[in-house]
Amino acid sequence: MPERGYQLLQDTVERLLRRNATYHLTNILKKTHPADIAYLFKLLDDRSAHTVFKLLPDVDTAADVLSEMHPSFRNNFIQSLSTERLVEILSAMADDDAADLLASLSDEVRENILGLMSYKDTEEVSELLKYPEDSAGRIMTTDFLALPENMSAQEAVQEVRKASATEMVFYLYVVDEEKRLSGVVSLRQLVTASDETKLSKIMTSEVVKVHVTTDQEEAARRVSRYNILAVPVVDDNDILVGIITVDDVIDVLREEATEDILKMAGTSEEEISSFSVWRSVRVRLPWLFAAWIGGVAAIKIIGGFEGHFSEHIALFASLAAFIPVIMGMGGNIGTQSLSITVRGLATGRIDPKLLWKVVFKEIRVGLLLGIAYGFLLALVGWFLNKSVILGVAVGVAMCGNMTLAAVVGTFLPLIAVKLRIDPAVASGPFVTTSIDVLGVTLFFVTAALLILN
Amino acid sequence: MPERGYQLLQDTVERLLRRNATYHLTNILKKTHPADIAYLFKLLDDRSAHTVFKLLPDVDTAADVLSEMHPSFRNNFIQSLSTERLVEILSAMADDDAADLLASLSDEVRENILGLMSYKDTEEVSELLKYPEDSAGRIMTTDFLALPENMSAQEAVQEVRKASATEMVFYLYVVDEEKRLSGVVSLRQLVTASDETKLSKIMTSEVVKVHVTTDQEEAARRVSRYNILAVPVVDDNDILVGIITVDDVIDVLREEATEDILKMAGTSEEEISSFSVWRSVRVRLPWLFAAWIGGVAAIKIIGGFEGHFSEHIALFASLAAFIPVIMGMGGNIGTQSLSITVRGLATGRIDPKLLWKVVFKEIRVGLLLGIAYGFLLALVGWFLNKSVILGVAVGVAMCGNMTLAAVVGTFLPLIAVKLRIDPAVASGPFVTTSIDVLGVTLFFVTAALLILN
Repeated sequence: MPERGYQLLQDTVERLLRRNATYHLTNILKKTHPADIAYLFKLLDDRSAHTVFKLLPDVDTAADVLSEMHPSFRNNFIQSLSTERLVEILSAMADDDAADLLASLSDEVRENILGLMSYKDTEEVSELLKYPEDSAGRIMTTDFLALPENMSAQEAVQEVRKASATEMVFYLYVVDEEKRLSGVVSLRQLVTASDETKLSKIMTSEVVKVHVTTDQEEAARRVSRYNILAVPVVDDNDILVGIITVDDVIDVLREEATEDILKMAGTSEEEISSFSVWRSVRVRLPWLFAAWIGGVAAIKIIGGFEGHFSEHIALFASLAAFIPVIMGMGGNIGTQSLSITVRGLATGRIDPKLLWKVVFKEIRVGLLLGIAYGFLLALVGWFLNKSVILGVAVGVAMCGNMTLAAVVGTFLPLIAVKLRIDPAVASGPFVTTSIDVLGVTLFFVTAALLILN
Repeated sequence: MPERGYQLLQDTVERLLRRNATYHLTNILKKTHPADIAYLFKLLDDRSAHTVFKLLPDVDTAADVLSEMHPSFRNNFIQSLSTERLVEILSAMADDDAADLLASLSDEVRENILGLMSYKDTEEVSELLKYPEDSAGRIMTTDFLALPENMSAQEAVQEVRKASATEMVFYLYVVDEEKRLSGVVSLRQLVTASDETKLSKIMTSEVVKVHVTTDQEEAARRVSRYNILAVPVVDDNDILVGIITVDDVIDVLREEATEDILKMAGTSEEEISSFSVWRSVRVRLPWLFAAWIGGVAAIKIIGGFEGHFSEHIALFASLAAFIPVIMGMGGNIGTQSLSITVRGLATGRIDPKLLWKVVFKEIRVGLLLGIAYGFLLALVGWFLNKSVILGVAVGVAMCGNMTLAAVVGTFLPLIAVKLRIDPAVASGPFVTTSIDVLGVTLFFVTAALLILN
């Protein structure tokens, strides 16, 4: 549905809700894609959303709609559903989606729900829930076709026909007698092969695969790098236990990018879809503390220099007016270097091994931009204060600070990677704070050396 | 290949290069996935990369490797290839990849190369190049299966067998007599249908499709939203002209996220894969100018207040020490609000229609955090300067500035969307600069009102 279509859908649904035209409403919902219904829910108020959810044509649609909702929005939404309804919906859901939903519930609620579901439905879901969060095992589905090596192409086609409930069949996985993964056959290869050919003859044996405990981002990167539609997941014994499909890969890669942006700024995903003020405050508070500590350090530093300048307090006041421009320019160039490095590392386009090459480039970029803006600032300082030496001092400080900021913004994420820390985590507040503190120190040291001596 | 595997591959290739063991090297390259060879090239020095490229087993592999390279890296790389070699490789490339590569060349070089390619190879590529940059038409492939409505399932299977060169067949598109798109059949549905069934009986008629001029990001979002593997592209007359496959969608979504991060910081994609210092300087210079203008405005503003405080210059100097903490905290909370809003808009989780709801939430978040940190800062001010009134002044200014910063960081991107401007474009420098200028003004106004009166 094009973006404008949602406006029309929302208007229609709201009009029918006001008129209580449930029959028409159900008809419209029948014709609407579950992904569109999930999007519609964000636009409706809570009461309308729940009324619409009750009118969904069947439990499969309800399961699809819940699967398509973003987790943070969904967790709010399901709180008002009865346990019975939730059990019914979860039983109709794909096992990976059900595991994802259950994982977000409290332990007590989850156990309660699992207890109420039939063994057939919970068996695989419980299996998935055993794998660590963010692992390949957690996002894989156990609905896949695994066929023996000596099966013929014709028999395999029969298997595809039978397996109507299996989600997204485009590869058939071939396993040996111990259920170990030995090859993959695309549906295309199967259709192209003659009836009697054994799968072992048409299969590709060099299979891109991941281990159950592989990080889900690494699994996603592999699907994306090799342009495949699904990646098989194996356990320690190379036994095929699941597959990760490309639609889940897209979700992982998008989440990853969003998380990178938000972590850099010292906040998190949690904040986006929630209107809870307290949650936002709780997420942001700790990272702002880094900036606060830095700011208090700057107060002490500037206070210290105030002593140095005690006989030239008017000069000190004139210099203070330059603090914002020196801090602001440093902060911005530092954020630029930081964003390039963090994103370059995430997409694999900057290799941590190139550390010194990257840092050396940033030194030169910072220096050139510092010379340009330092020169301009020297002119401003000279013009406003009729003092050549003050102009020179602010210009030199600006140039030094911009170079330093570019280096700090590049160096910190690269060092974080070497130390196996996520380079995006709150590097924004951390980088800008250290740049601020270094910047004011450098500024007053330069001014003291050039003007007072 | 797991990340560690690249180290091994690089070491082996470099060792064989030193020994001039070209036979072994070619054998290794034959067994390595083109995507891995493309990655390897980033780790090798220029000379080794070119030697390895010459040793690639065949022109198809060379075409695949070039397709997998990131554009900015590739453009550097191909400059050293002869025109003849490039013509040969482009002729072996998928049409969408060839169009992508050609679009990045200068007009003159492109025309020259197109002139040297055979008509068969250039026909479709030239067609793609006619569509605007970043449109669905530019990234679609014209390799797809379009079959008539009255064809039987059995005949369709024959078509799939014949179409061996076609990339990634998983959907067959069904067209009417005028070649207008009328439905889609998955390979799975085809295999499951009985031989004589007409395609019109098994096809899904409600097809998610995009227009050739649709923005590529919108096309990508649609594939991702409906969990499909490819989306058909139609022209003004609803005639099927191409398809966009999920592997290209992944690339578009990743690029989009990276661009968002970099645009927010006032830089661009161009910078990541290039070691050109001048290019980086050119990209960053204009956006830093916004910060510079803001900084110079702050100099004038603080200079103005200096006049007000002329009889209390020591007090003014004490206040100046608080500029960094007030600016820094404002900048950080502003960046948090900005990141959440920009990314929420990009992923569709924040709807621009909710503007006031979002802004109102941010006012409360900013106010609460402002009260917390303002109170702490008031204590610091009181303690360091033994002045209650100074403590109150800096605390109130901090609280006001943090609230203001949260609102500015949320409001500007939402307004940008309403004005149909990309909310990510340099919003970082723009937001922090306006927060800096507003912040120092607010700070000195508060101090002047509370302390001088």
